[in-house]
This record gives sequence, structure tokens and C-alpha cells, in this order.
Amino acid sequence: MSSSEDNAVRLQAMQDACTAAGDDVRALKANKADKTEIDAAIAKLKELKIALDVEVKAAMAAGDEKLAEKENFRNKMSGALEQRLFYIPSFKIYGGVAGLYDYGPPGCAVKSNLQAFWRQHFVLNEGMLELECPSVTPEVVLQASGHVEKFTDLMVKDVVTKDCFRADHLVEENLERILADPMTPADRRRELEDMLARIEEFTAEEMGAAIVNLGIKAPETKNDLSAPYPFNLMFPTQIGPSGAAQGFLRPETAQGIFVNFRDLLYYNGGKLPFAAAQVGQSFRNEIAPRAGLLRVREFTQAEIEHFVHPEKKEHARFNEVADVELNLFSRDAQLAAVKKPFLMTAREAVAKGIVANETLAYFVARTHVFLEKIGIDLKRLRFRQHLQHEMAHYAEDCWDAEIECTYGWIECVGLADRSAFDLKAHSDKSKVELTAYERYDEPVISEVFVCEPNKKDMGKAFKKDAKAVTDALMALSQEDAFALAAKIDADGAATLATAAGEKEILPGMVSVRMETQKLSGRNFTPSVIEPSFGIGRIMYCMFEHSFYVRGDDEQKTVFKFSPLIAPIKLAIFPLVNDSGMNAHAEKLSRELSSEGVSTKLDTTATTVGKRYARNDELGIPFAVTVDHRTLQDGTVTVRERDSCDQVRVLSADVLALVKRMCALTHTWEDATAGLEKQAAAAE
Amino acid sequence: MSSSEDNAVRLQAMQDACTAAGDDVRALKANKADKTEIDAAIAKLKELKIALDVEVKAAMAAGDEKLAEKENFRNKMSGALEQRLFYIPSFKIYGGVAGLYDYGPPGCAVKSNLQAFWRQHFVLNEGMLELECPSVTPEVVLQASGHVEKFTDLMVKDVVTKDCFRADHLVEENLERILADPMTPADRRRELEDMLARIEEFTAEEMGAAIVNLGIKAPETKNDLSAPYPFNLMFPTQIGPSGAAQGFLRPETAQGIFVNFRDLLYYNGGKLPFAAAQVGQSFRNEIAPRAGLLRVREFTQAEIEHFVHPEKKEHARFNEVADVELNLFSRDAQLAAVKKPFLMTAREAVAKGIVANETLAYFVARTHVFLEKIGIDLKRLRFRQHLQHEMAHYAEDCWDAEIECTYGWIECVGLADRSAFDLKAHSDKSKVELTAYERYDEPVISEVFVCEPNKKDMGKAFKKDAKAVTDALMALSQEDAFALAAKIDADGAATLATAAGEKEILPGMVSVRMETQKLSGRNFTPSVIEPSFGIGRIMYCMFEHSFYVRGDDEQKTVFKFSPLIAPIKLAIFPLVNDSGMNAHAEKLSRELSSEGVSTKLDTTATTVGKRYARNDELGIPFAVTVDHRTLQDGTVTVRERDSCDQVRVLSADVLALVKRMCALTHTWEDATAGLEKQAAAAE
Repeated sequence: MSSSEDNAVRLQAMQDACTAAGDDVRALKANKADKTEIDAAIAKLKELKIALDVEVKAAMAAGDEKLAEKENFRNKMSGALEQRLFYIPSFKIYGGVAGLYDYGPPGCAVKSNLQAFWRQHFVLNEGMLELECPSVTPEVVLQASGHVEKFTDLMVKDVVTKDCFRADHLVEENLERILADPMTPADRRRELEDMLARIEEFTAEEMGAAIVNLGIKAPETKNDLSAPYPFNLMFPTQIGPSGAAQGFLRPETAQGIFVNFRDLLYYNGGKLPFAAAQVGQSFRNEIAPRAGLLRVREFTQAEIEHFVHPEKKEHARFNEVADVELNLFSRDAQLAAVKKPFLMTAREAVAKGIVANETLAYFVARTHVFLEKIGIDLKRLRFRQHLQHEMAHYAEDCWDAEIECTYGWIECVGLADRSAFDLKAHSDKSKVELTAYERYDEPVISEVFVCEPNKKDMGKAFKKDAKAVTDALMALSQEDAFALAAKIDADGAATLATAAGEKEILPGMVSVRMETQKLSGRNFTPSVIEPSFGIGRIMYCMFEHSFYVRGDDEQKTVFKFSPLIAPIKLAIFPLVNDSGMNAHAEKLSRELSSEGVSTKLDTTATTVGKRYARNDELGIPFAVTVDHRTLQDGTVTVRERDSCDQVRVLSADVLALVKRMCALTHTWEDATAGLEKQAAAAE
Repeated sequence: MSSSEDNAVRLQAMQDACTAAGDDVRALKANKADKTEIDAAIAKLKELKIALDVEVKAAMAAGDEKLAEKENFRNKMSGALEQRLFYIPSFKIYGGVAGLYDYGPPGCAVKSNLQAFWRQHFVLNEGMLELECPSVTPEVVLQASGHVEKFTDLMVKDVVTKDCFRADHLVEENLERILADPMTPADRRRELEDMLARIEEFTAEEMGAAIVNLGIKAPETKNDLSAPYPFNLMFPTQIGPSGAAQGFLRPETAQGIFVNFRDLLYYNGGKLPFAAAQVGQSFRNEIAPRAGLLRVREFTQAEIEHFVHPEKKEHARFNEVADVELNLFSRDAQLAAVKKPFLMTAREAVAKGIVANETLAYFVARTHVFLEKIGIDLKRLRFRQHLQHEMAHYAEDCWDAEIECTYGWIECVGLADRSAFDLKAHSDKSKVELTAYERYDEPVISEVFVCEPNKKDMGKAFKKDAKAVTDALMALSQEDAFALAAKIDADGAATLATAAGEKEILPGMVSVRMETQKLSGRNFTPSVIEPSFGIGRIMYCMFEHSFYVRGDDEQKTVFKFSPLIAPIKLAIFPLVNDSGMNAHAEKLSRELSSEGVSTKLDTTATTVGKRYARNDELGIPFAVTVDHRTLQDGTVTVRERDSCDQVRVLSADVLALVKRMCALTHTWEDATAGLEKQAAAAE
């Protein structure tokens, strides 16, 4: 039991004691007991109340302090990020727009490195088929996918000002406030906790009832609120000049892949399984964007759709990741009394049926590896399985990669086995078959019902009505057809209702029989397993996991980015303002840039310590100093950001050294083993 | 004179001869001449008419043939591109949407390589500040930039069906049809040619007049057309739930850079010049998308904004490209009788004042180098200067990189010196100063007029009216202030009209004087030089310049992509279906992929020739064959796509070999010099 749960139990006990003491006092008074006895009971009640009061205040202060600590960390980090233009509110000179952010130079570089690595780790490594589809999407596509009807949030309006609010946010905030109050009685607490747990699935009616139940008014104005109603989160637009073609900005990149399934399958030689991927912008017109980069109106998604035979969900490369240890927060673990994730290899998770199949587990493990390499703290990573009621009816199994940051556990990657739902939906709407063909190992023999009109007889007997009679015969059910044949056999004729009136069918005009057919294969709709990455959310969590303050100096902020992801790989500076050193530094900078290693040349000749501090703020992992010795023997010093260790190396060897560490094939220790260590200069 | 111009002159002469012969016949008839004389004249007329008719038909057929040849080439290439999913119409299973395309796997890879190289060549090489801004943009930003008011095309509607057409397209098509007719008289021809040349600048009224002049009706229906009216090409949307915040999808990426100028300048340490860049989607709701990838509704732009002091447009790295020879189609060359571009170095173009300044010429030359490296045929590249009337009033100089393809000369890159226009426009609208500070070499001394009320006296004398009097004094012009002071000097008092009525100003209440001030610098609005790249257009032209048919076999299509740009760098296949060869090929493929070299493993064991042909269709530059010898000595053969040359090399050396060629540091000849040549297998 956590200390906060512990605390709650204790507070409840104290409150129970107060209630009992109060009952005592009332009972004594009712019984007209002795005054000293009553006074003693009152004194005891007072004492209990004071003790409870102290405890309640302490409990709330502890919560506040933890909150304040988190907010302090977050503000400090956001300040560092905005100051160095990692990201900034878009259109700032016009007052900005909620939920829209620009990435400035270092943010852009980090994002670009993250995406390049994603491409290398998933697309290139597995030969996925990459696509790029437009953001502007015609309505019909999003009708098929269900977004036009269902991609909504419940909204309420201030009845006077018409200001809009997300209904669940209002209810949640109110619930949390009431639950945070230690004096809330246990019964009410249980009721509200239940409400909080189910709020994501509330219908408009349930949400309305909750608003009434909690007595929620509009924030600030305290006006009444409208009943909740669904608001579609897609940005609407019109395509073409007539204004008649309704379009939307895509809410996800996945649909572009599904509608191309047929061509992709053909491109892949008709073979399953294969995966397609897309990296691009998605758009959600959030009612109330908040939490910085975590809930925005335009963001980059990286989605994979792995198409697979519904009964063959093994993965050929599963063994490569089967031993990866995952932090799993399974459905059972979430429903247990003590809710705790557990460590388990991907292999065991599949063997025990905890993760539904190998392919899904393969992607969970590959995602784990990806997040580790870009610098996510594994202690703050878990894979949470969707509870039954969270999953769509068609989904087989879903896991979210959740990363913990100061906003709590954030869903950063969704991994879902969506069965055949998406392809079937688009096939139904477009009337285009979106299936794969499977050849049976052995041909399948089956009996097929055949009702075959004799064309010649039809024409001769019925002339212009021949088509109506043929159609009527072909439309007969197996049972009706055999009944008709039996009647013709028995009576020498049978009457048939057709679009051209009743007609008499004579022997020989139709053949009704069962036929043996040999089928060598069939068409089927593949299942799709979808890993879906929110690039901005991953980046934000990575920022939090990378940020620290060096030593005791609150001014010295550092981002300990992985060299793979760091916006700039290497800072280069001449020790003092000397033309020889400047020229050497410039030449080195050019050489590295032309080899694709981004450098920052700092010739300000300010103190080395100050220059290091500036680099730390940008998370530059390595710094080269060109000094007096360089001009003699061509060596420079290279410093590692976090350890502040320095080595001396030939200037000509810097490129290879840095490249190895940026490709993560070598750590600093491996890469610099055997090199001359350099004592750190005073910073 | 070109042969077609030649032809036109000849046809005109023949037509003149016909007209003269007809006049002769009429004159003879009018003069009641001898019948044999008249008959002879008629025979001559007939003969001339027949000859003219033959010539006209031949001229038209020649034009048609040239057109047919171009269309044949284009259809063949488009077929090859669509077949291999380089690009395909978006949402095809729903019938598609005009002007929206998906990039399939090889197209996506080509685009991604092109963008990566753009980033390396421009952003990384020059330390540009990269940004990423959202597509969704609030109205105010695009009001400031002028897009809300002016980003329009003239549109007409079929008055019955309400179908929309681009007015200039209709007029152009009609003009071209009439001009293509050799029988159009010279006068009319000149009038129409003039119309065609000016059509881009037509007002709605002029366009309407042209439609009437040419008698244009709606295509197909032949209904009347509405008068032309401006249609805004931006996709509209609403931001946020209330529907009150009008937004648009950005029509260009540039505005995101301008609105961030202040932060970017700060990031750059307050120093000019610096450049910022953005690669991203832009959106234009074209009335009539056409010409495949050339005029689409959503496309990728790569834009650079180079901010520079308006009087210091030298470029520090100009010398690196000064000797690049450019194909310049200057304003003068376009206006000359013989309209021909000419070759000239960037250095000479600046020295002669043909390109306005070094920085603009620097980017023209860098663009030339970029286009050359990605495989644009330099013979089909020219830089065309905007004519005076094509440029916005504020622009200093503009050049378009135009690439010739079957659709004609296509503007693929715009390079413009836009002066201070954009920063001023946003500064005016946002009321935020968007300037840089410049320290004068020497402080500037200047005389400044000062009118300074004596605060103490104001309060004492005017009490609650003090502010009104102070304001009135401060608002005085230099002339009025000195007149007031003179009056006080002369009369011992002066009357002043204030918001609180007339007041008497006494000596000592105000000091009016000229003061000497020393200014050490000033704020100024930088100029911006903007290179703007249309990635899709460049790609399309590159496709055309890369496409050919091998030998006489029309089925053997090849894209001779530069190794830098090729979607897949290397095909790998085992010669026959052998487990040892398969394993070797698979291992090699994995190794190369993990090093970022994309490979295509082909284990189909079909004929080598067929496999080569498939690779050619994708433009894969190199192919490795694993054969019997591989299993003995570890060597494989490597084949170059265009020459079909083959060398034998250690399997372990393939990575380094291919990397060198893909980085363009080595040609095939350099890289394989000294290696064992292999005789080509029969394909």
C-alpha cells in the first residue's frame, strides 16, 4: 500500500473517531448526563477534531508540495526549452493560437533526428512500404472510417457568454477537487471514484447527469452550462471552387494506408504479411488544448499498418526481440487489488497469452527498444493493456506505451490488433474488394447448389420475357428450386412468378442440381496490427527525462540527449581569439558539416565554462576545443557533456570518433578507451 | 529564326499570293475580260489554293506529331511511375480527388532523399536556422501577408450547370487553338498574341472582355459563362469549437518564418545576415488542378528566408560559387528580338548588374549546383528573370529556375529579393517591432527639437488640469512651440488651448529648445532574399530527365536516377535458388540496411535479365549478384544500371563502394578503377 493510501485509511479512522465522539456527546446530552462527564466528552471531541484538522492540513500540504515540485521542474524545463527555441507558441506576435506550436532550430533538429531514426529502426530495417498521403481528405473516406460520426468530444457552453468547455475536463476537475478534500465521506468518495473511472465512456446523458450531480457551473462566470453535446474534432474545409465538396484535415495518417491496400499488396507481389508506414501531420480541433506539446491541434504521427493473415500472426523476426524485458501493465494487473506493472520477456508474455500474438508482441518489444535508444528512462515506461471496455468491439488486443512525466502517465504509442475492421469498412463503402488471396495447401472439395436455366428454351418459349423468367429462376433459393424441379418432374410443368407475370416452366427448361467443385484457394480480408506513434508526445517526455541541473547551480541547465537525437552533435571552439585557432576550428566545422555531422562553431572567445554551459542548454553531447597544442601537433580536446571527461585526439580523428558515438555503436567509454585523458579546465 | 517561324512566314506569303490571285480574278470579271484570260486566272487561283491547303495540313501535322511525341513520352513515363507506385491519385478507390496525389514506396523514398539532400546542401552546409510551423494559420497572419485579399484566381461559372472554370485557362486554350490555325490573319494573330502575353495580369474586366471578344462558351455544354470574379485559393477552416476563429491552411511556408523573425534574430545573437528555412506542406485550392504533379492542391515546399542589411548584400561565401556558369534568361534577353538565354558566370552576372546583388546570385548558383547534383539535365535548365511588370512593386529582383519538360518550361524554384516588405507588413499588423539594430561606425550627431513642460509648475498652477496642459504643450509642433516661447518672452505670458480650456502659460513653465544628441546606432528593417523550392515540381522534372527506354525494347524502361536520389541503392540477388547463396544475400542485405543503405532483396530466382529489368524500372543504380564463386572466395558481382558494366568485388567491400557512389564523392569509373571486370551475362 502506498503512503498516500496509508494516509487515507488513517484519516478515515480519525474521522470515524470524531463522529463517534460527537455521537457520545449527543448521547450524554440526550441522557442529561453529569456536566463534568459531558465536558470531558466535549474536550475529547475537540482534541480529536484538532488532531484531524492538523492531519488534513498536513496531507494537503504534502500533496501541494509534490505538485509544486513537479510544476517547478516543468516550468524550469519549459523555460529552458522556450529560451533556446526548442518550441514556441505559433504566431506569437499575434497573441498565439492555443494548441499550435512552432519548433525552432534545435527542436526541429531533434524532431528530424527522431523521425530519421524511427524510419531507420522501423521502415528501413524491416523493408516496410512507406507512403505519403495528403492531409486534405474527402468526407467519404472519413465516413467509412467512422470519424465523421464518432470522432467527437462532449462539449458544454456557458449559456450566457457562449464560451465552450470540454465536459469531461470540467467534471474531472471537479471530481479531483472533491476527492482531494480529505473530509469527503467514504461513501461519496467511492461514488465519485467510480464516476472518475468511467468518465471516458460517458454518454451525453450520463455526462449531463454528472454535471447536475456535482453542481458544476461555468468556470469564472459561474453561469449555467448547456447540456453536453458531441463536437466533431476534425477541422472542416471545402475542396475545389464550388464549395460543394466537403473535406476534412485528416485526424490520423492511417486511413491513407488503408485506402491504398490493394496497390500495396500488388506492389508486394501479392504476398502477406507486409507492413506499410506513414509519417506526417495529423489535425485535431481540440476544444481545450492544454499541457503544452501533449494535447495540440496539429501534430506529427508515425503510423505502421502491418497486414497479416488473421490466423497466422507469428512474426518471422520475433526471436530477435523475444528476450526483451517489458514493463507490462496487463488487464489483470490493472484489475488486481494491488495495481502494479510487472517485468516479463516478450517471449513469456506471448507464451502465457498475456499479449495476444507474436506480431503484436514483436512491435511492443521493438517500440521498447526504440524508446530506450532515444533516451526514454525505462523506469518511467510501461505498456498498459486496454481494459475490455476501452477497446473497440472489433479489436483483438491493444497496448499503449505510456511514459511518465510531470503530467502523469502519457499515452505516447498505441499498439493495436484491429482485426479486419478498417479494410472491411473501406471495402463496404467503396465497393472495391480489399482482400488477399490464399491458396489452400490442398484443394477443398465442396458441394455447390446450381440452378441453370436453359438459354435456348428461354428465348424460344418466352421471347421478350425471357430475361424476367431467367432472373426469377436464378433468384430461387436452393429449397424453392428443388421444389420447382420436383413439381415439374411430378406434374410435367410448374408455375413460376416472374416480373413479367406468372409463367409455366416445362421439363428441360431448367437444370437444378448439386455439383462437386474443387476450390484451390479463397479471398480473405487480412487483419491489421497498428503501431501508432505520437512524435510530439514522445519528444516532450524525452525532454523531461533528459533535463537536469548541474551540481548546485540552478542556472546550469542540461539536456542529456542521446548523441543519436541531440540537435547538434559537436560544439567547436578556439580556446582564445587567435587567427590560427579560429582557422583550424572553422576548417574542422566545415569538414564535419559536409559529412552530415552538425556542429556549432563558437568563436566568441568568452570563458570556456560559459561556452560549455551554453552547449549544455542545447544538449550538445560533445565539445572540441582547439588550443595552443593543436597548432603544434594537430590534436584537440573532446569533452563529454555529462561526465565532463576530456580526451585528447588528433583533429583528423574527430569525425570518426563522433560518428561512432552518434550511431550508438560505441559509448564514450568504448570510443575513447586508450586515448590520452585531459584534466578538465576550471569551468 | 526557328523552322516554325520560317514556316509561318512562308504560309503568310502563300496566303498573300492567293488573295492577290483572287483579286485578279475579280478584277478580270469586273472588267469583263476575255473568258480564256479569266479561266487561266481561275486555274492559277485554284493551283495556289491547293498548294496552300497542302502546306497548311503539313504544318498542322508537324505540330501534332511533335505534340504526339511529347504526349507519348509522358504517357509512357507516367505509366511506369504509376505502375511502380512512385505516385498515384489519392483516394483512388473512392474515385480520387483532382490535384491530390499519394507518393508510394519508391516515390516516398525519392522525395525523402531529395529533401535530405536539400537539408544537407542548404540548411546544414550554411548553418541555417530550421523551423517547423503548423499548416493551420489564423486569418490575421494571412491578412498581413496579403493572401486574404490577393491570393486569388479569376473564375467563371457555367450559368446553367454552375460548373467552375479558371478564366485564364479557358481564354488561353481558345487563344492557342486560334493561333495554331495557320489561316488566322496576321492582324488578328498579332492582337491575340498580345492578349496571350498579357493574360497573367488581366483584371476581371479585361478577362471578361477577352471572353466576349473570343466568343468563349462553357466547354462541353456550350452554355453562357458568368462574368469572371476572384476566387481565393486558400483552403478555409475554423479553429476551435466556437466556429468564430477563421483560419486557413497556409498557402506557403514563408510566413511562419517571418512571424518568428524577432526570436530568430535573438537566437542568432542579434547578428545579420542569417537565414532561416522551412520544409513542409503548403495548400492551394486550385480551381482546375492539371498537369499531374505540377499543379496540385497540397505540396511540399522548401523555403529559405535570408535576412540581410539592405545596403550590405555581399555574401561571405560568394567566391565558392562565383565561377559557376549559369544559363541566364535575363530581362533584356527576353525583350530582345532574338529571345535566347546565355551562359555567364555568377561573378560576371553580378559585376555587370544583371543579377541585382551577390546574395541573390549566390543562391541562384547554389540552386544550379543543387539541381545538377540531383540529376536535372543542365541543357533543360534556365534562370529566367522576372520582367518589370511581373514583379511586385517592392521586389528588387526575381529569378525563376525553370526546367523544361513535356509541359514546357516549368517554374520550379523562385529566387527573389523581396526587400523589407514582409517584415514591415507583419510589423504594421502586429504592432511588434521586427527590426535589427545596427551600431554606426561612428556616432551620428544631430539636432533634436525638445519641448519640456516643468512638471512641478504644472501641478502647482493647474492642479487637476495639469495633465491636459502638459499634453497640449507636448503636442505642439516645433514651429508653434518656438512661437509660444517667443510670446512668453515678449509678453510675460501666452495663452494655450488645452482639453481643459484655454490656459495661461507663464515664464519657466516650459522649456523649448534644440538639443544636440549623439546616436550610436539605429533600428532598421532587414531585407529578405527568398529562395523557394517546389519539391514536387522538381521531382517531376527529374523523373522526365531520368526516364529512357533501353535499346530498341519499348518494354525496358529505365530511370537513370542519381545514386544520391535513387529510392533504393542496391538490388541483391542470388544467381539461382540455392540455400547458401540465399543466406549470403540475406546477410548482406541486413548489413547494408542497418548502415542506412536501402536494398532490395530479390530471391525470386527468375532470370537475371528479368530481375535487372525490374530494378531498372525503379531506377536502382547498382545490383549485386551472389553466385557460385561467392561461396568459394566471398566475391560478388556489382552491376551499374546505365552502362551495364560489371565488376567483381569482395562482398565485405560492397558497403564502402556503394556509400562512396551514393555520396557522389566517386563516380562508377573512379570507384571501380582497378577492380576485376566481369563480362555481362546475357540479359
